[in-house]
Amino acid sequence: MKDFLGCQNEANMSLFTDLYELAMCASYFDNEKLEPATFDLFIRRLPASRSFFLFAGLEQVLQYLQSIKFTDQHIAYLRRQGFEEPFLRYLKNFKFTGEVHAVPEGTVVFPQEPLIRVTAPIIEAQLVETFLLNTVNLQTMIASKAARVVQAADGKTVVEFGLRREPGVDAGMKAARSSYIAGCQGTSNVLAGMAYNIPIFGTMAHSFVMSFEHEIDAFRAFAKTFPTKSTLLIDTYNDLAGAKKAAAVAKELEKRGFKLGGVRLDSGDLAETSKKVRVLLDSLGLGYVNIFASGDLDEYKIEELKAENAKIDAFGVGTKMGTAADYPYLDIVYKLCEVKNGNCGFAPIMKLSEGKATLPGRKQVHRFIDEEGFYVKDLITLADEKPEGEPLLVEVMHEGKMSGELPSLSQIRESAAVNLRKLPEKHKRITGALPYPVELSQPLTDLVESLKKKIAISEI
Amino acid sequence: MKDFLGCQNEANMSLFTDLYELAMCASYFDNEKLEPATFDLFIRRLPASRSFFLFAGLEQVLQYLQSIKFTDQHIAYLRRQGFEEPFLRYLKNFKFTGEVHAVPEGTVVFPQEPLIRVTAPIIEAQLVETFLLNTVNLQTMIASKAARVVQAADGKTVVEFGLRREPGVDAGMKAARSSYIAGCQGTSNVLAGMAYNIPIFGTMAHSFVMSFEHEIDAFRAFAKTFPTKSTLLIDTYNDLAGAKKAAAVAKELEKRGFKLGGVRLDSGDLAETSKKVRVLLDSLGLGYVNIFASGDLDEYKIEELKAENAKIDAFGVGTKMGTAADYPYLDIVYKLCEVKNGNCGFAPIMKLSEGKATLPGRKQVHRFIDEEGFYVKDLITLADEKPEGEPLLVEVMHEGKMSGELPSLSQIRESAAVNLRKLPEKHKRITGALPYPVELSQPLTDLVESLKKKIAISEI
Repeated sequence: MKDFLGCQNEANMSLFTDLYELAMCASYFDNEKLEPATFDLFIRRLPASRSFFLFAGLEQVLQYLQSIKFTDQHIAYLRRQGFEEPFLRYLKNFKFTGEVHAVPEGTVVFPQEPLIRVTAPIIEAQLVETFLLNTVNLQTMIASKAARVVQAADGKTVVEFGLRREPGVDAGMKAARSSYIAGCQGTSNVLAGMAYNIPIFGTMAHSFVMSFEHEIDAFRAFAKTFPTKSTLLIDTYNDLAGAKKAAAVAKELEKRGFKLGGVRLDSGDLAETSKKVRVLLDSLGLGYVNIFASGDLDEYKIEELKAENAKIDAFGVGTKMGTAADYPYLDIVYKLCEVKNGNCGFAPIMKLSEGKATLPGRKQVHRFIDEEGFYVKDLITLADEKPEGEPLLVEVMHEGKMSGELPSLSQIRESAAVNLRKLPEKHKRITGALPYPVELSQPLTDLVESLKKKIAISEI
Repeated sequence: MKDFLGCQNEANMSLFTDLYELAMCASYFDNEKLEPATFDLFIRRLPASRSFFLFAGLEQVLQYLQSIKFTDQHIAYLRRQGFEEPFLRYLKNFKFTGEVHAVPEGTVVFPQEPLIRVTAPIIEAQLVETFLLNTVNLQTMIASKAARVVQAADGKTVVEFGLRREPGVDAGMKAARSSYIAGCQGTSNVLAGMAYNIPIFGTMAHSFVMSFEHEIDAFRAFAKTFPTKSTLLIDTYNDLAGAKKAAAVAKELEKRGFKLGGVRLDSGDLAETSKKVRVLLDSLGLGYVNIFASGDLDEYKIEELKAENAKIDAFGVGTKMGTAADYPYLDIVYKLCEVKNGNCGFAPIMKLSEGKATLPGRKQVHRFIDEEGFYVKDLITLADEKPEGEPLLVEVMHEGKMSGELPSLSQIRESAAVNLRKLPEKHKRITGALPYPVELSQPLTDLVESLKKKIAISEI
């Protein structure tokens, strides 16, 4: 029986690639084109509804690069697809041996900035394109969305609740990871809790309530099992009637020396209902019972609830965050920017396609910071320029081996929080944020112009 | 080193669940509530931009149900989360032992219709909710989107090209599978090709062209490696200049007894450019060279291209199909509809939450078909009604074992094609499709009304 993913282990991931990567590699091999090249992974543009990205996914990129190999089963499959024996022999011994520079996970980044820079023999650098894009797209997309949700919640707890509608197993795992990096307190995904050591949260479903003859029977049964941490879902039939029953159970718990954790609202007018429920609970001396809200939430809805003075202590945010529903992909690409040219060093390369032009040469991003620590602007430069400003890309892999220890997930989460604080408010408002300035250095601008002219003469 | 997914094998998938499922199960166990119950998996409503769904994902559901188990590692993790020993002992021996009815993969379905119906001891039926929703959401979402794209292409080839921006590994695998079910000719995803036996397609990237000093050098190198099946990407610098070079290489191939497969356009005005390139190729006697188009395509864009008489033979459709970008999730749910009530048989259950009411009781869907074989309407009934019309839900699992052989992927794909043909044109137009009639039987309507009254009296 096949597993659910079609990929039982990491070695298998080498075929998780577009066929054209392998076709190009076969042709590079056939034409003895084995020189090193450099590729940049970057995002072309911001969706209308975003003003920054929060970079995530590097750990999985490095694990993949360290482990990629072709098994006998892979080779046999590629043989049946018509690949030639010399290339298959090459693949059998394939290892990634290149250099990788990247911005750390949890970095605030912007369009056009190289996020990962790979320098390796061109076959190696080309072959890994698809996986790198796939995992960085997913994780950076969710981290960027979740950062907005956490910001809208303004210090209140946000828990990632989207597992059931996140698209697939990997999306479910990485949504938990990425939204935790962005500041969520945890996830409903138990496997992610175990795999990534993320706090897990859960309450009860309507089915639990409905399976009992009366709603209050369900509340009592749940409180019996979890006397110290029950959150009761009160909207199965009618939210205020449900709140009264939850209050009765809270009083029963008090007599046994326990406290009800909270009640959850999952439908209707959350602002209005939360206020009524708060008044009811407070009037019964149950000020300690939290109100947890869920149901179709995102950063816009949370801002609305805040504006309406909703009495909500914590948000369970699911589908819209876990799928980045308003923009469920990034315009992320991986582009060749230089090729080694015999003994003449690296030659810069650029693409001119309409609307899809790229920045040539090996590059760095420098971030300028004011006296108070706030980000002012970024400058994309050629790698050998030395402007002021903090360089963002650091070496993470040398000759196919990781350059240092990976940070833990909680370290990434902490640095993301610090970095997000350094981005001025005007650049991260939920609506109407001002564009953050990203400039090109003069040497890079000059290189772009000279290559445009050269290509116009030789290719068009 | 952890693998990329956090889930190395199918057994591991038992923790791929929301914490509240386990919490409810622990409370059911603690309260000795072990009676059977029935849950329906269904989609609440159609997105504005869809008029039907194409059901997919059942194979993975059945594999999961057959293999779910808790390992020692899982149990240890749950112990650390505070679950009690008697429940952990129960989980250690957990097996899914229930009955499952489902519509076959490749069935055209509509909102409110039960797609999977699970009857099992309530703990078993509850615990599996998250995985079932996760995989059916992904696969049905993509199959439904891809069916529209294939329809818009109107007989021309569509290939799924979205791997790099599909959200994660599982999404990449299942997008290939689901879009193949919906009528795509194949995928760029090599691993999906191997795992699911789907034809794989690929051309070349701009990086390949740019890595050579001149564009024509790249074309010659590629044609050398693949003399019988090269598709040359001609828009790296300028599409018409590129087309002329591709034509030159086609002529060189002809002298060696080979034929160029095609050229690919990936940017700019695809309709205009394709016409110019077609004229150019035809004027040189290269009428056999196909024009392949890609770049930001979806069903709307393809309809536009058709209206503009674009000369395109095949479409590579990526991100927008592979992420169902205009609506990247389904409003899919899994709801309790009956519980065994001691010796009194099953009691029907319904949820009344605002905007989220459910249909009670064990149900069936009957499809009415006219003399020409076209679908006329569906009727949702209680399971023991026997109206005319073909019942859609069939038994697929009995006492935890599959009731029969699973159809192969190509069988599913063929039946999807037949089913889609039976849906009248007016219900599947890309824009302005008429709603397909789905009605409730009188006994089901009566049950809804009587339960509403009963709940109003006892719970509100």
